[in-house]
Amino acid sequence: MPGEVIDRPNPPAQPSHLPDLLDQLHVQLQQTALDQDACDALFKFRRAASYIAAAMIFLQDNVMLKRDLTPADIKPRLLGHWGTCPGLILVYSHLNYIIKKYDLDMLYVVGPGHGAPGILASLWIEGSLEKFYPHYGRNVDGLRNLVSRFSTSAGLPRFVIASPPLETEADSSTYSHINAETPGAIHEGGELGYALAVSFGAVMDNPDLIVTCVVGDGEAETGPTATAWHAIKYIDPAESGAVLPILHVNGFKISERTIFGCMDNKELVCLFTGYGYQVRVVEDLHDIDTDLHNSMLWAISEIRRIQKAARSGQPIMKPRWPMLVMRTPKGWSGPKQLHGQYIEGSFHSHQVPLPNAKTDGEELLALQKWLSSYRPGELFTAAGDVVDDIKSIIPSDNKKLGQRPESYKNYTALDLPDWRQFCAEKGEQQSAMKTIGKFIDRVMVQNPHSLRLFSPDELESNKLSDVLEHTGRNFQWDEFSNARGGRVIEVLSEHLCQGFIQGYTLTGRVGIFPSYESFLGIVHTMMVQYAKLMKMAKETSWHHDVSSINYIETSTWARQEHNGFSHQNPSFIGAVLNLKPEAARVYLPPDANTFLTTVHHCLKSKNYVNLMVGSKQPTPVYLSPSQAERHCRAGASVWNFCSTEDGIRPDVVLVGIGVEVMFEVIYAAAILRKRCPELRVRVINVTDLLVLGTEAPIRMRSETRRSITCSHPTDRSTSTTMVIQAN
Amino acid sequence: MPGEVIDRPNPPAQPSHLPDLLDQLHVQLQQTALDQDACDALFKFRRAASYIAAAMIFLQDNVMLKRDLTPADIKPRLLGHWGTCPGLILVYSHLNYIIKKYDLDMLYVVGPGHGAPGILASLWIEGSLEKFYPHYGRNVDGLRNLVSRFSTSAGLPRFVIASPPLETEADSSTYSHINAETPGAIHEGGELGYALAVSFGAVMDNPDLIVTCVVGDGEAETGPTATAWHAIKYIDPAESGAVLPILHVNGFKISERTIFGCMDNKELVCLFTGYGYQVRVVEDLHDIDTDLHNSMLWAISEIRRIQKAARSGQPIMKPRWPMLVMRTPKGWSGPKQLHGQYIEGSFHSHQVPLPNAKTDGEELLALQKWLSSYRPGELFTAAGDVVDDIKSIIPSDNKKLGQRPESYKNYTALDLPDWRQFCAEKGEQQSAMKTIGKFIDRVMVQNPHSLRLFSPDELESNKLSDVLEHTGRNFQWDEFSNARGGRVIEVLSEHLCQGFIQGYTLTGRVGIFPSYESFLGIVHTMMVQYAKLMKMAKETSWHHDVSSINYIETSTWARQEHNGFSHQNPSFIGAVLNLKPEAARVYLPPDANTFLTTVHHCLKSKNYVNLMVGSKQPTPVYLSPSQAERHCRAGASVWNFCSTEDGIRPDVVLVGIGVEVMFEVIYAAAILRKRCPELRVRVINVTDLLVLGTEAPIRMRSETRRSITCSHPTDRSTSTTMVIQAN
Repeated sequence: MPGEVIDRPNPPAQPSHLPDLLDQLHVQLQQTALDQDACDALFKFRRAASYIAAAMIFLQDNVMLKRDLTPADIKPRLLGHWGTCPGLILVYSHLNYIIKKYDLDMLYVVGPGHGAPGILASLWIEGSLEKFYPHYGRNVDGLRNLVSRFSTSAGLPRFVIASPPLETEADSSTYSHINAETPGAIHEGGELGYALAVSFGAVMDNPDLIVTCVVGDGEAETGPTATAWHAIKYIDPAESGAVLPILHVNGFKISERTIFGCMDNKELVCLFTGYGYQVRVVEDLHDIDTDLHNSMLWAISEIRRIQKAARSGQPIMKPRWPMLVMRTPKGWSGPKQLHGQYIEGSFHSHQVPLPNAKTDGEELLALQKWLSSYRPGELFTAAGDVVDDIKSIIPSDNKKLGQRPESYKNYTALDLPDWRQFCAEKGEQQSAMKTIGKFIDRVMVQNPHSLRLFSPDELESNKLSDVLEHTGRNFQWDEFSNARGGRVIEVLSEHLCQGFIQGYTLTGRVGIFPSYESFLGIVHTMMVQYAKLMKMAKETSWHHDVSSINYIETSTWARQEHNGFSHQNPSFIGAVLNLKPEAARVYLPPDANTFLTTVHHCLKSKNYVNLMVGSKQPTPVYLSPSQAERHCRAGASVWNFCSTEDGIRPDVVLVGIGVEVMFEVIYAAAILRKRCPELRVRVINVTDLLVLGTEAPIRMRSETRRSITCSHPTDRSTSTTMVIQAN
Repeated sequence: MPGEVIDRPNPPAQPSHLPDLLDQLHVQLQQTALDQDACDALFKFRRAASYIAAAMIFLQDNVMLKRDLTPADIKPRLLGHWGTCPGLILVYSHLNYIIKKYDLDMLYVVGPGHGAPGILASLWIEGSLEKFYPHYGRNVDGLRNLVSRFSTSAGLPRFVIASPPLETEADSSTYSHINAETPGAIHEGGELGYALAVSFGAVMDNPDLIVTCVVGDGEAETGPTATAWHAIKYIDPAESGAVLPILHVNGFKISERTIFGCMDNKELVCLFTGYGYQVRVVEDLHDIDTDLHNSMLWAISEIRRIQKAARSGQPIMKPRWPMLVMRTPKGWSGPKQLHGQYIEGSFHSHQVPLPNAKTDGEELLALQKWLSSYRPGELFTAAGDVVDDIKSIIPSDNKKLGQRPESYKNYTALDLPDWRQFCAEKGEQQSAMKTIGKFIDRVMVQNPHSLRLFSPDELESNKLSDVLEHTGRNFQWDEFSNARGGRVIEVLSEHLCQGFIQGYTLTGRVGIFPSYESFLGIVHTMMVQYAKLMKMAKETSWHHDVSSINYIETSTWARQEHNGFSHQNPSFIGAVLNLKPEAARVYLPPDANTFLTTVHHCLKSKNYVNLMVGSKQPTPVYLSPSQAERHCRAGASVWNFCSTEDGIRPDVVLVGIGVEVMFEVIYAAAILRKRCPELRVRVINVTDLLVLGTEAPIRMRSETRRSITCSHPTDRSTSTTMVIQAN
């Protein structure tokens, strides 16, 4: 069948018709050979990590291969992804080496999140698993736990199998994806596309940090990744660190070739040169260590050159940041062939390369041969630790990729001004966005390196331009757009904004993401993935707090202008409300002052997804600063100034939520006052939608005469309904 | 303030440090001068369209500028987007000219959907508005209607202002965005990012069609657009038409420069060469007609060359499709300066360039000067028609961009085989996906040019690989991936899949989009935008039916394997259920046979968003083909074979929805049968979730003894509950 998936290993990318002159774009290096000790250590690290990763997928017993494998040694159900592991381990080994040798501060963000076995194996080897999970010590027991529990009911693929885990402590070590339980991870490894943007967010205002980000060639097909390559244009090398992107081209997705795997070097180098990078292709399979090491050193030196120029006041315009394209076979070092089919270098090694190892003697033998090929006897001591050779390239604890404080304990609270001085006058017409714009401006002035605003195209349209009073848009590509220290990132990609704010927040800083209501829906699955990451982080014993992630929605369904139908989609609020109250808060402040105190509250709050919904248009200011504070603290309260009742038994309760609905409710109350003066009308505003959580809607329905009390367990000082008096 | 938005017109892109050799990549042309008549006609078309577009934003009276403007002529509220209009009109004029001259079949997909005034003006000029909306005739009244109603309550920005429209006929002519009411449009102009993918979907299996797609430099920042440039790699030039992408670089978004506006020609040409294109930059502002015309001719000839080679059996591997980068100033030909600020060539012309024209005398005068500069007296006849010069470049009716049948009347039903022959045996364990895979394979064989399957990475994982029995993956980049006639597009971008299926469906063909449950959520806002387009199309008198858009969800929350938590997000079903029942259907067939008849039904159905949810794992087949058909026709029915009741008054009603829940319900009934044999248990399965719509959930709750009847107004032959008997 023409066009069927080709069944040959490492199909070469067919040459394009691009002119040969493009070969000159490809960065060529004078390569210095690595010394033999380093080569040995790197090779042993890789063999050890690959051995463990492969063993994790297959073995439930005999994990050190002390005897020949039998079917009983094999797990009953084989789960996990092998194909991407060797590449991830290769990069891990070299990062360790250069971190140690050059005393670098690095994080490692792994796009191919399915590669958990490779990363967990590396973390075990460097001792970072043990630090957070004592039962995964670098000893015989620890290794057996790690290997045998992966993807089984004895371990913690906690959403897979109902039987209780052995440990109650959260524990990712047997989890099929990289997630918050994985030491060093700042990126949820489920839905593909966001690793690169998260990496760029992490280095903003982190001048010494380099995040190495591996992007798989599958993930590279996603839209969010395709635009994230532009993110260098938003990095100020004076104030921020750098991302070293590595596009890992292994050629295959689950069962088909990848776009990038079909592109030849001319195409790849040309594409990424166009994005603004200097591109180095790492592909010498005969001496990958020399090639990768020299390429990494070159990349670090280019990063330093760009940073040094900017930090000495001589910024390079359109700096050409380095990136690497790494071509290695899928499932490299795994089984070569099986039943006449190629495995290594083909899509057959994507997941479990020997799927019937438990029942098929030939496959069991192939597994034995494969695992033995790493010569585990040379890699582990009798006590089950790794040999000293391997340890020789592992950095000190605080430099280890699994123990960097940026990844789990780095939060510093913002220095917040008194919000009351920014309040609008009660009675005037004021835009809530205008009001908070001035406040956010001041917060940015007081926190020049730890608060950023990430926005698509609508900052001015949302009447937030006052945030630019003392700062600029941090768009860095040329001299006309080069706001040193700018706190605002504006890019017409909600995916980029979301990736940036995730990376920025998870490394200890605070972000705000304002947008039109309809466009936040574009990133609702990213928000949900982020909430999952936060949930799992909170379930560990070792993750510290991080700031909440703060969304501001304007231009809601309730007040659409000429944009009308095409811009209507209030789905994001539904997505946030689907989260548990422990994870999310939804606020609909009814006026400028309540919006202001809500923003102030959210910027202090921790570990939540905060959604604030409001209007950019001028609307009445109902509450004084102290009234606004009391109202927001309660979450919902009776507004006496527009109610007509004795405080005991209203005939009618009108509840308004949100600026526009509350406006109508107050007007409706006024009509009732005029037409039925004898009617006792209670007017309530709900500003915190989740106070409704504990008093179920059903009760609300059957007891309409009850007003709402606030018994939701939040940080409020009172749990009773506040009454806002007219003054 | 450093880094503030620069306030100078047309800031030149600062040169990058890319090597000069890249200049050789830029396609250079021997330009042939246009003859003077053509130039005159093109110029007049543009002046007329620009005049009308500008007038639409501002004027409520004196629309032909027969006298000096007064404040009373100006609309009370100025809404609309001017900035992108001149570029869209420029392209429109040249497309008309080459379509007519070379007898081309073209569609025009407009990414910058805010540019409705420019497109509506062009449609009025060519007479396409009049064809569908008689009150917009090419006469004095028609022009006055068009101009004066745009963005006012007299016209139809139908979701803006509550007052009733003058016409009951759907009517986009005063709508601020391009949408289904706009003749010739196949793309909803609200949320940015999808124009390019939709264009590629439209040309698939349309060998003679060329879709010219303008992508704005704002939209180009989005992720979905950034990856859509790769779509050429999925176009087989033998069987499909071509997209001519035009990246329109005018430099600015709402209030900030664009990424692409900051890239110099070396960067742009290098980037798009890397994607695989030949790139021609059109930027000669002194003679834009010669430049654009020659560039378009070159592009068409390159397209023809690539197609001819493929169609003569000598396909070019990695064909370098042409694309244009068009650099023109934002708001070109609009006001130059106002109050000392630049307008043309700056972000100030994004929306309404003279925002206070009604109240500020200086602005009113500027408007008078601006509109007069087009010399309307030379463009329109006394009767209000355009002059013959302009008509000389307008193609014949069926070639006009506003009247192409592909855009509104092109649906042909599929030739469907009898689904019953693909049924599984009642009682066996069968994967629903496996079953439908064989059926879809046959449908593809019988419909080799009108059914495609668009899928992210999970085709094999979803056990749908039987669809590849007689076809291949249509990935076209090199000789190893070159399935002539392949019906399957697999690309790891849900955004691309969704864009493709939209373009393919709207031009009269049928698509299926299978994916994991969690990943369809990635494109939920695209699906909603598509549903809006369908809604508005149905409200016109002139749009014909199109096929439904068909989603298949597997790997649901109910049965997650090792992917677990990171792959859980059942949000897409909620997004579909939020649509009205006229727009959407949600099916959860409980076994292989019901899934099969559901797919068969969906492939016949029209104008819906169909979501089918099921399992890829083998599960029991409960129903014979005829039972399955009756059950699905009813939407919900009592399953007697697992019920224990007399058909009148059950004590308990158990309702199952979806494969896994139904499995549990049947098991629960068996337990009850055993433990409480006297209990009368009625078991119901609901396969069509929207049959529940008319019998409200509240009634269900209070009358648990009632079973469900099917009174939903669908195409079912019966509205009573079917009873599935055990055999």
